[in-house]
Amino acid sequence: MSTVGYLGPKGTFTNVAVDAIFDSVDTKGYRTIPECLDAVNNDEVALAVVPMENAIEGTVHLTVDYLIHQVDVPIIAEVVIPIEQHLLVHPGFTGDLKDIETIHSHTQAIAQCHQFIHKEMNNAEIEYTSSTGEAASIVQQKKGSHAAIGNILSAEEYGLKVLRTSIHDYENNHTRFAVLQKNQKPVQMKELTANTYKTTIMVTLPSDYSGALHQVLSAFAWRKMNLSKIESRPMKTGLGNYFFIIDVNQPYDAVLFPAVQAELAALGCQIKVLGTYPCFHVEAPSLSTEKTAE
Amino acid sequence: MSTVGYLGPKGTFTNVAVDAIFDSVDTKGYRTIPECLDAVNNDEVALAVVPMENAIEGTVHLTVDYLIHQVDVPIIAEVVIPIEQHLLVHPGFTGDLKDIETIHSHTQAIAQCHQFIHKEMNNAEIEYTSSTGEAASIVQQKKGSHAAIGNILSAEEYGLKVLRTSIHDYENNHTRFAVLQKNQKPVQMKELTANTYKTTIMVTLPSDYSGALHQVLSAFAWRKMNLSKIESRPMKTGLGNYFFIIDVNQPYDAVLFPAVQAELAALGCQIKVLGTYPCFHVEAPSLSTEKTAE
Repeated sequence: MSTVGYLGPKGTFTNVAVDAIFDSVDTKGYRTIPECLDAVNNDEVALAVVPMENAIEGTVHLTVDYLIHQVDVPIIAEVVIPIEQHLLVHPGFTGDLKDIETIHSHTQAIAQCHQFIHKEMNNAEIEYTSSTGEAASIVQQKKGSHAAIGNILSAEEYGLKVLRTSIHDYENNHTRFAVLQKNQKPVQMKELTANTYKTTIMVTLPSDYSGALHQVLSAFAWRKMNLSKIESRPMKTGLGNYFFIIDVNQPYDAVLFPAVQAELAALGCQIKVLGTYPCFHVEAPSLSTEKTAE
Repeated sequence: MSTVGYLGPKGTFTNVAVDAIFDSVDTKGYRTIPECLDAVNNDEVALAVVPMENAIEGTVHLTVDYLIHQVDVPIIAEVVIPIEQHLLVHPGFTGDLKDIETIHSHTQAIAQCHQFIHKEMNNAEIEYTSSTGEAASIVQQKKGSHAAIGNILSAEEYGLKVLRTSIHDYENNHTRFAVLQKNQKPVQMKELTANTYKTTIMVTLPSDYSGALHQVLSAFAWRKMNLSKIESRPMKTGLGNYFFIIDVNQPYDAVLFPAVQAELAALGCQIKVLGTYPCFHVEAPSLSTEKTAE
């Protein structure tokens, strides 16, 4: 049985992503993205799951930078899950919103529910925690008029009930997670149908000149290769030097991609393929009724 | 005197940015990016300073998304400061690295110092806090074998001394902060020389088709307008719809920009100018000797 490392602790959105694609697998939670990526790079775990975009638990940049500068582990799958934040209280709590005196959560979770808190719970005190899991654990201990903001997993982990579901401000807030594997052995995943296939490549421009990026994109455009994401990031060697992360909406093939790579190399660009992989869009875990009922 | 709202509490990197460009100004710290942006939008404060890129205190995405979807406040300046993390201890502490049993800090700060901790302090316990300021406050109270990771401001705020300077893994780690102002009144800033001028625009593509971005960039490329950053972001209306944030390396003018806008409008794109502004690259605050000496 392969162990899956993930950005923990238990109850994080990354944990939700792990549960969404793996069946009864051994898991190990790491507290930072570098720790988790080092673990898969050093063969402590067979696979790693870390947030790539719009995550509450760690910045995307940290993941991308670490994959580029520190470890050489390909992306083998992507998981996209909706971010849903709920208001969680102790199971013995019998009041309503107005009776909540203190809300506990991670800064980013509080920020994501900003409008709801402002309109519905403007008098509650806010206490910031290091994670949504820690917030749930505090509410489990304090009982009374305390509430936590977090996902369903953290409610289940600490035996809390859901007082209000989906209190986040934006309905279409998703997080992308990357599944990484160093040795390309077969992986036991749930039977999911891939929504699409992607190839992620990193392109470093030879120097900062106007129109360079335009030239790079030409190589994809005239081949009608669709890009689903492009982002420029500063190199760690100083301000002003950029590389680009480009997601191409198709699997790596033996014709188009090598041709693009040859064309970009002729322009003086450096290219690194970070992975070619299926993408799975999964639902957020649903509420189990015994947890929401009093 | 105008009040400057910023992503607080005191001692954050955003606070460092405020000190770098404003002289003896009234400030007010907010605990989340939306709160801070609402404050400037509702005229509670005259100006706001929030992280835009690579920040430890909040995701960039949150700032950009809020500026686009929730408030209409232009960027009037950008401040770039190096991220420097130091190991802070109680002034009464007389040991060395090996005597530190517990390190306190924000997850992102711990992650940024991952290599240092791994090599130099591998036996220390890690305790995660909601901010680097909270970590410093804990070390102030606990004394003994506790250390915090944070910047110089948080050391000064809590009277800690610096045991090791610059323990972050990457030397060239910078954070970009945006200064926002709703009413375009003259602002009293320190006398700094702008390193460059930028214009940030948001472009929404009419639909997802191959080469669309390439066409958009053509409008800039053939005018030799240099882009310093480009990033695609999903619209909140669902996956698959994208907008682009583009930083052009020159101030808005009466000829080139209107021509680009007309050309993009003809392609069916929507354009929004988020600001045209000077960029200031400033030094991280230096150590005052009386704080570092025992």
